[in-house]
This record gives sequence, structure tokens and C-alpha cells, in this order.
Amino acid sequence: MNKRIAIYPGTFDPITNGHVDVIERAAKLFDKVIVVIAVNSKKKSLFTVEERADMATDAVKHIDNVDVDIHTGLIVGYAQKVNATALIRGVRAISDFEYEFQIALMNRKLDENITTVFLMPHEKYTYLNSSIIRELAGLRQDVSEFVSPYVAERLRTKFA
Amino acid sequence: MNKRIAIYPGTFDPITNGHVDVIERAAKLFDKVIVVIAVNSKKKSLFTVEERADMATDAVKHIDNVDVDIHTGLIVGYAQKVNATALIRGVRAISDFEYEFQIALMNRKLDENITTVFLMPHEKYTYLNSSIIRELAGLRQDVSEFVSPYVAERLRTKFA
Amino acid sequence: MNKRIAIYPGTFDPITNGHVDVIERAAKLFDKVIVVIAVNSKKKSLFTVEERADMATDAVKHIDNVDVDIHTGLIVGYAQKVNATALIRGVRAISDFEYEFQIALMNRKLDENITTVFLMPHEKYTYLNSSIIRELAGLRQDVSEFVSPYVAERLRTKFA
Amino acid sequence: MNKRIAIYPGTFDPITNGHVDVIERAAKLFDKVIVVIAVNSKKKSLFTVEERADMATDAVKHIDNVDVDIHTGLIVGYAQKVNATALIRGVRAISDFEYEFQIALMNRKLDENITTVFLMPHEKYTYLNSSIIRELAGLRQDVSEFVSPYVAERLRTKFA
Amino acid sequence: MNKRIAIYPGTFDPITNGHVDVIERAAKLFDKVIVVIAVNSKKKSLFTVEERADMATDAVKHIDNVDVDIHTGLIVGYAQKVNATALIRGVRAISDFEYEFQIALMNRKLDENITTVFLMPHEKYTYLNSSIIRELAGLRQDVSEFVSPYVAERLRTKFA
Amino acid sequence: MNKRIAIYPGTFDPITNGHVDVIERAAKLFDKVIVVIAVNSKKKSLFTVEERADMATDAVKHIDNVDVDIHTGLIVGYAQKVNATALIRGVRAISDFEYEFQIALMNRKLDENITTVFLMPHEKYTYLNSSIIRELAGLRQDVSEFVSPYVAERLRTKFA
Repeated sequence: MNKRIAIYPGTFDPITNGHVDVIERAAKLFDKVIVVIAVNSKKKSLFTVEERADMATDAVKHIDNVDVDIHTGLIVGYAQKVNATALIRGVRAISDFEYEFQIALMNRKLDENITTVFLMPHEKYTYLNSSIIRELAGLRQDVSEFVSPYVAERLRTKFA
Repeated sequence: MNKRIAIYPGTFDPITNGHVDVIERAAKLFDKVIVVIAVNSKKKSLFTVEERADMATDAVKHIDNVDVDIHTGLIVGYAQKVNATALIRGVRAISDFEYEFQIALMNRKLDENITTVFLMPHEKYTYLNSSIIRELAGLRQDVSEFVSPYVAERLRTKFA
Repeated sequence: MNKRIAIYPGTFDPITNGHVDVIERAAKLFDKVIVVIAVNSKKKSLFTVEERADMATDAVKHIDNVDVDIHTGLIVGYAQKVNATALIRGVRAISDFEYEFQIALMNRKLDENITTVFLMPHEKYTYLNSSIIRELAGLRQDVSEFVSPYVAERLRTKFA
Repeated sequence: MNKRIAIYPGTFDPITNGHVDVIERAAKLFDKVIVVIAVNSKKKSLFTVEERADMATDAVKHIDNVDVDIHTGLIVGYAQKVNATALIRGVRAISDFEYEFQIALMNRKLDENITTVFLMPHEKYTYLNSSIIRELAGLRQDVSEFVSPYVAERLRTKFA
Repeated sequence: MNKRIAIYPGTFDPITNGHVDVIERAAKLFDKVIVVIAVNSKKKSLFTVEERADMATDAVKHIDNVDVDIHTGLIVGYAQKVNATALIRGVRAISDFEYEFQIALMNRKLDENITTVFLMPHEKYTYLNSSIIRELAGLRQDVSEFVSPYVAERLRTKFA
Repeated sequence: MNKRIAIYPGTFDPITNGHVDVIERAAKLFDKVIVVIAVNSKKKSLFTVEERADMATDAVKHIDNVDVDIHTGLIVGYAQKVNATALIRGVRAISDFEYEFQIALMNRKLDENITTVFLMPHEKYTYLNSSIIRELAGLRQDVSEFVSPYVAERLRTKFA
């Protein structure tokens, strides 16, 4: 049987412990998981796409069957290129869900073969997202409880 | 590598085309999917658990890697018995999601190894659930668009 | 041009000022509005269907183009019988909306020609529904602020 | 009796098949429907207001009782000018609904005579909005399934 | 200055660690908190109202300024009797919130002087409610992680 | 016993009657309420922070135990500085609630001693927020029904 590949697309600006929790769960369900850093020319990011890929690579280095990649353009195009069976999305709250639902419907419209799989991170990550981490780090708060040591260091450097 | 087993628990009173849509998607993601008819002594059902299992078995007979089983008691107990990796839930709407989220959190509390996987049936099944089917059939409406031919016939017999 | 008829189905057990507010708005949009008291053999009601129709008739007697009727069975069947263009539903809150949305999708599936029209009662009726009125009346509270004088009297008699 | 006029305001940047579906439903309920392209100096649009009106006019040319107009300023002011009875809004999801509810409450505060009427587009348009269309077109994807041929052509020209 | 009293009404069938978490937070905000076991003749409970009060009293014995009481009828009546300033409600999720919002609006309608105060239990209690505890205990599961030792024992006895 | 202090942080650009309604309710629950105008360098405001504090001070001058202050940085830091027991948030709708819930969880993570207290403004303020007021004032509409006379005057001057 073919290996089952799942992709987990996102901005990851930067990757948080909540993202890693979702990746760990996905890695148990699929033969390979690819974390896909999406390049979005319209949304301004704190870190460059290379920095984001670098931090993500470090954060998932303890999980065997996980890769990190960068992609520009439609995520469905990437899924087709790597022959992905599933597209992973983490959902923590109702508003996440509504937005994700709409994206998933559009992606399915674009390619009926890609199944969106919603996973639920640990409830202790309900409050956590990259935007709140950037805000806390910008106010020189300690964020080492919410991100990996390497990401915490990169944030300190960025705001030094 | 071990086979990955997913369970899809529910009342299935009766199984609808929306359920089958979810099962077809799940069957592409996992090596085996077990549809688990939950016996719930408190909730009165239209069909007996054996009738429900019989209709579900007929409705999924075109999918190779799907089994149907009956279980009394905690669903987490069944997951452990069959060594399931994932617990499938279909979500169509916000209210589904909230309820499912709570159940999933409790199940995870009971066994951290079971990952709940939320799948989205085709949007044309958004309106569909077993309760509406029972109501329509009770009013002698034609439901053959929403359930399999065998289920439609069983409903006609039940309300004749 | 044909007259445009709208139906407003519900249990109305009993009719409240929130219902009347929706009916007044609908009466400005359509040539005729028919309040349809749905007979639901499964749901136990406080008032008989005749009592409910009687109270509704009294509550809308100040609006020229409104009738009250009783119907058993699928509401879509009634809509077809009276040649209704629209089916009115009041929505006050998110949970109303989700439920109503699902019903409206199913009704549209059953007859594509019937358009569900959602109207928003005055925000002062957000808290109000028949179930809360029955509970308050059962506790011998004064409900004359929430229902018509005639309904208030019928409730007093019922719980005397 | 006076003709009943409904207005359907929005940005329409550009008009999609989902919008047209709502307009077709509204056109059956009212004597005249006016699609009102709102000029919003703060929100940057892809198309000019004239281009948006031109595309909307083409997209509704098959419906007799529909006009297209442009308006700057409060939508309630426009409603008063044309003597509108109803203000049409399409709702596809919970988050739509919450936002629309708040706008409708404010509009009612500004003029108690205008009734907001919520209509539900076909469920196959649940995933569809102008922003997703602009994004797909910007990535040179084919959007001819989601918009009229004329709008598809204008998008191709815009991103050529 | 007068002492500020808050009431925390509910069914508490039985009291869980999630309830106790809310009570501990409320006890820091007010001079006195009264846990009010509501007698609801229509809702069948597992424990009698006396058993529920007994378990609640045991569960809050470590907090100085908390009392437990029993009340039949409108909760607003109880609030007036004890001169309460606030009515405490725990909210864990959107669906909680909608329901609680409606109740709070009605209570405010009945007595404008009572302010409903929504508190958020620890996120680890998101999954927890009395109904799930009753179900787990009925299946002879260990619930000692979710309720006090005394409540766990009472549940074991009840289902022995 | 120590005095209980609650803070009510926000942008208040400008303060509306809905905000004042929340402040009046909070003032009955706590010994002192401090309205904290948050300085947010990223969000562009219509009024300067000094103007916002000035308008807020005027709007609450009829309530004895309310102060207004300005704060830059993490709100939890301010709460610690003034020894606040509670952090007040007004909630009017589901979307408010979801966002507020997430912020409250993060704040509790940053300091477990601060309890977020959700209060519900009068339902007549459901439609009201600062952004809608700025938009109406920008279109030279009369907003005196929604804000204090002094704020209405400042808005007129600003847009003259």
C-alpha cells in the first residue's frame, strides 16, 4: 500500500507549542506529515519565510516522520504535487472552526481528492496563537512556556 | 508497520447518506474503519441495535476496509479493545462542533492515546440527520434521496 | 400580479409579544401572512392546538392581512396548498439561527420554490420564548409584560 | 397598493454566483430589487465602483425586476430615498449572521421602518465570497465556476 | 459599607470540581457566596435535593465565606430575599454562553438590581459537567479526578 | 478587609453609552473601578490617548468610585501595580465572547490571581461599538443617542 502523506499548511510566524502538539498527533495518524510554510505576499510577517521554516524544522526535530517545506501559491497545488491524502488543520474554538470550514469547503471544491482532517490541540493551548506570542515578545515578556527554546531565543533577538 | 484502525461510533438510527459520506472519506485515511453502533439504554431508538447494525452493514458493503460492530458502554473501552488509533466524528455545523469538542475532550481525558479526527461530510448533507429522516418517514414522505434503498424500505415497513 | 402569501409556522404554546412583533414586520412585506399552528403529536404542549389558535387569533386581530390556521404534517405541504411564496422564521440568537438554518435547508430540499425569510424581532424580545413564559406562569409570576392580556388571563386560569 | 421595493447593498468586488442566487430569490419576494454598490472610501477595492456596477448589471440582466445603483454614505439614507420596504442580506454561516445582526440592529435604530430580511443562498455557495475569488484569480486559477463569464473575463484582464 | 453577597444557583447533581473552581474564584470577589441548590420539579435528578446540598456543603467546606442553601421557585425571588448583589454563572463554551445570556436577560427583566456575573472556570474543566459525571459513574468508571472524594463515594454507593 | 479594585481596560475610541452601562454595573460590585485607556501603538485611533481619557473622565463623572487612567504595555502589569482583584469585560454577543475568552485565558496564564469578570450591558446596546460610532460621525450623522453630550461634541469638532 502507498504511504499516506498529510500536509499541515500555515504561516507559523512563529511556530508555537500548540502547533507542535497538533503535529505530534498527526504524525501518529499518517506515514508522513509535511509542515508547509505558506508564503503570503499580502500578509506582513514578523519573520521571513526562511526563518519560519528554520524555527519549524527545529521544533519538530524530535518527530521522525515530519518534514518542513515552503510553498508559494494555492495550497491545493502543493497537496497534488506531493500526493497528499489529507490536509491537517488544528481547531481550538468555534471561530477557528467556522473559518477553517469555509477554507476546507473551497479546497474540496478545487480538488475533491483532498480530505481536510480537523485535529484538536490539548486544551491547555486554547489561548495560544502566534499573534499573541508576537505581542508578548514585543512587550519583552518571557514566552518560553509557549514556544520552543530556539523560537524564544529568536524572538528575544528580534526584539532586542 | 501496524495497521491503523479508526472507529466511527454513533447511534445510526438509521444510517444516512451523510454518514456513508463520512465513512467513505475515513476509509481513504485509515487501513480499517469500524462503524460502532452504540447501545444507549437511556435514549429510545426507532430501530433495535441489531436492525441498525444490519442497515449499516448494507450501506457500507461497497467499501472494502469497513466493518460494523455493536458496543455497550464507554466508547473509549471499545477503542482500547480494538487498538484504535483514531475516533472519527463528522461535523457539519457549529452546534455539532461544540458538542463533539466536549465529548472529544472527555474521551482524551479518559485515554490520551485516542485522537479524535473531525471530518466534514459533503455540504449537500448539511441539512441531514437521522432525526429528520425518522420524522419525514413518519409523515410517509419519500426519503430515498437521503438514505440507501434498503434503509428506505425498512423505514416504509416500520411506518406501514 | 398574484398576491404574495407568507406562512409563519410554529407551536405558539402560547403566542408571545415576540411572535407578534415578527408577524407585524412580515405583514408589511407580504400581501397576506398566515400564522400556522403546527400539530406535533410527539411534543407535549401546555395548551391544546385549538386553544393556541384561539390565543393567536386574538393576538393578531389588530393586523388586517393576517390569518391563523392549524396544520398537521409537513409544513411544506401546507405551503404548497396555500401557494405560499415565503416561509417566515424569527431569529434572535445564534442557536436559533443554526437550528433554523438546518430546517430551512431541509424544507428547500423538499420544495425548491419555498423561500425561507428570516426576520429579527425587536432586541427587547431577545430573552423571550414560550417555554420561559410557561415556566414563569407556572411559578405564578405576572407575565402581562410579555404576552397579550388575553394570553395572560388564559395562563392564570390554566395554573389556578 | 404600492410597489414593494427591496434593496440589496454590498461591495460586490466582484459579484459572485452566490450573490446572484440571493438576488434571484429576493426578486420573487418583492416587486423590485435594487442591487446597491456601496462606495466605501476606507476599504480598498480591486475594481472601481463603476466596474463593480457594470459587472453586477451584466450578472442580473436575466432578471426583469432588478436594477443596479451606486451609493455613497449611509445605506439607510438610500433606503429612504427609494422608499424601500426591505433591506436584503444573504447569510451563509454563523459568523455572517452575527455581523449582519449587529448591522441590522443599528440600521433599525437609524430608521425603524426598514426591515432587514435575511435570505439563505444555496448551500453550494457556502464556501464562496468575493475575497476568495480575488485570491484565486490573483493566483491565475480558473474561477468560471463561481462567477459569470463576464466577471471571469474581467478578472483575467485585471490580473494579466 | 454593606456586605456584598453573590448567589451561585444550579442543580449540582452532583457538584463537580469545575463548580468548586468557580466558587473559589467568586469567593475572592464577594464578601459572601451562597451556593443555591435549585429545586426543579420537572427535571428528574439522580440525587435528592438534600443529598445534593449535603455533597455541595462538603465540597466547599475549605472556603470560609461560602454557604449552601436550597430554594424552590424563581431564583430572582431568592436573590431578593438574601439581598444579593450578584448572580454567578460559570461559562465554559459558546453554547453555555448563549443559554446563560438568555437566562440573564430574563432575570434582569424580572429584577433590574441583580447583576449576572460570568466567570470562567479553569480550562482543564472545559469538558466537565454533572451529566457526563453521572454517565461515567453509571458505567462504573472512576470519577475521582473530577469530583471530591465524598461525591465519588456517594456515586459509587448510588450505582452499587 | 482590603478594598476590592476592578480594572476595565479598553481602547475607548471614544467611550459609548454601552461602556458607561458596563461601568455603572461594575461600580456596584466593587469598591473601586478603574477605566484603563490602553495605549496600542499598532492600532491607529481617531482620538489621542489623552483625548480618550478626557472623554472617559467626563462620561463617568456621575459615578463616585470610578477613576480613569492610561496604560502602555501588558494589562496584567497594570492590574498587578494597582492590586486589582478583577478585570472587567463587557460581552454583548458570541463573537465578543470567543475573543474575550481567549484574552482572559492568556491573562490568567500570565497571572493566576486576576479573575476576569464578564458583564452584560443592557440589550439596547447590543448594536453599539466605537467603530460604528466613528463611522456614523464620519458621515455627519447625529450620534447623541449613543454617546454622552461631550463625546458627541468632540466627534462633531473632529469631523467638522
